[in-house]
Amino acid sequence: MPLWHIYCPSDAYTPRDKEDFADSISELYVKHAQLPKFYVSVVFHEMPAGSLFIGGRANDRFVRIWIDQIARRMQPERIEPWLKVIAEAIAPWVADRGLGWELHGDETPLKFWTIEGLVPPPGGSEEEMRWARDGFASPPPETHAMS
Amino acid sequence: MPLWHIYCPSDAYTPRDKEDFADSISELYVKHAQLPKFYVSVVFHEMPAGSLFIGGRANDRFVRIWIDQIARRMQPERIEPWLKVIAEAIAPWVADRGLGWELHGDETPLKFWTIEGLVPPPGGSEEEMRWARDGFASPPPETHAMS
Amino acid sequence: MPLWHIYCPSDAYTPRDKEDFADSISELYVKHAQLPKFYVSVVFHEMPAGSLFIGGRANDRFVRIWIDQIARRMQPERIEPWLKVIAEAIAPWVADRGLGWELHGDETPLKFWTIEGLVPPPGGSEEEMRWARDGFASPPPETHAMS
Repeated sequence: MPLWHIYCPSDAYTPRDKEDFADSISELYVKHAQLPKFYVSVVFHEMPAGSLFIGGRANDRFVRIWIDQIARRMQPERIEPWLKVIAEAIAPWVADRGLGWELHGDETPLKFWTIEGLVPPPGGSEEEMRWARDGFASPPPETHAMS
Repeated sequence: MPLWHIYCPSDAYTPRDKEDFADSISELYVKHAQLPKFYVSVVFHEMPAGSLFIGGRANDRFVRIWIDQIARRMQPERIEPWLKVIAEAIAPWVADRGLGWELHGDETPLKFWTIEGLVPPPGGSEEEMRWARDGFASPPPETHAMS
Repeated sequence: MPLWHIYCPSDAYTPRDKEDFADSISELYVKHAQLPKFYVSVVFHEMPAGSLFIGGRANDRFVRIWIDQIARRMQPERIEPWLKVIAEAIAPWVADRGLGWELHGDETPLKFWTIEGLVPPPGGSEEEMRWARDGFASPPPETHAMS
């Protein structure tokens, strides 16, 4: 959580661009939601020309982003400010390059989620902070282990 | 909104097929939901042979479609007729070609959506009609701007 | 239903691996949810190196799985045991190979789903059992047909 899918033109980003873009996204969740950074997954999908259609017309200068957020629920009034934060953070890879873009997200069930077969600890818990410090998932002394 | 993902065999569609298919989908939303046409995104994912499995068996003559609808909510009793409309509209690219197909969709939160960093105007509003006429998103005189 | 998307390194699986992996997933739903096996779709997405980022760092030894379940609803207390069953079943293709992995799922509206333009029969019904035996969707004598 979250999982970002970025559908982009195949020549839009260098490997370094992708790393910087993904890192900026990840830092947003660390800063604004206190998530362990490794919770943030970003997948770049380089689309061949003629794969993405906006209003029925091929658009090869467009970035379509889709997000599933899992670990935290947003109050409805927090969503618009959150999108504003996102828009500013990702501007260097979309608007500032003259690429059109659209983004939408969903919130999926917290319980229907596992990392390495483990149940992630409650948000904001000591155990979550331990995962954040470690940078990876690991079984706790007794609880949360699935296997 | 909506976002259609079409996972198809890599040789299923010519560029022209994709354009016609995407345009037919987009027109459905213009006609039946009065959406600005550019709200409709369609992404074709050409899958290499041996990528899609139905019931555990590779099926390279199958089209799997997944939809996220954002801008409009459907009354439950409207969904089945809507699927019927869709099935008829897309028949030339699936059933009529002897391709198996399956489609499912979800409705995601209206608020968790932005085009070019702008909050899309309320459904059916004057402002949405302006966007529809323009064919692109733009800030209103004062409201809805996110930046 | 369900649809599994498996985002994996491009060299992670042979064609036989994919078949075995997809078959194991499909059998889970047959065994635990009595689904017709052909309801289970699995899509493998081989990601080029440098496409998947975990916590802002490229990770080419990671498998990210995303599931949409449609045909059955889980009681909340059943989800964690279900994830345990999944984790054990898929271990040969992830943990046992030293690949990191994360999985999350969503449940999407039952009504917003069609196979070949047909409305799938009610879960557990005689008609569903007929589909399961046949191994494909077909119109019933009178009901459920969409066209």
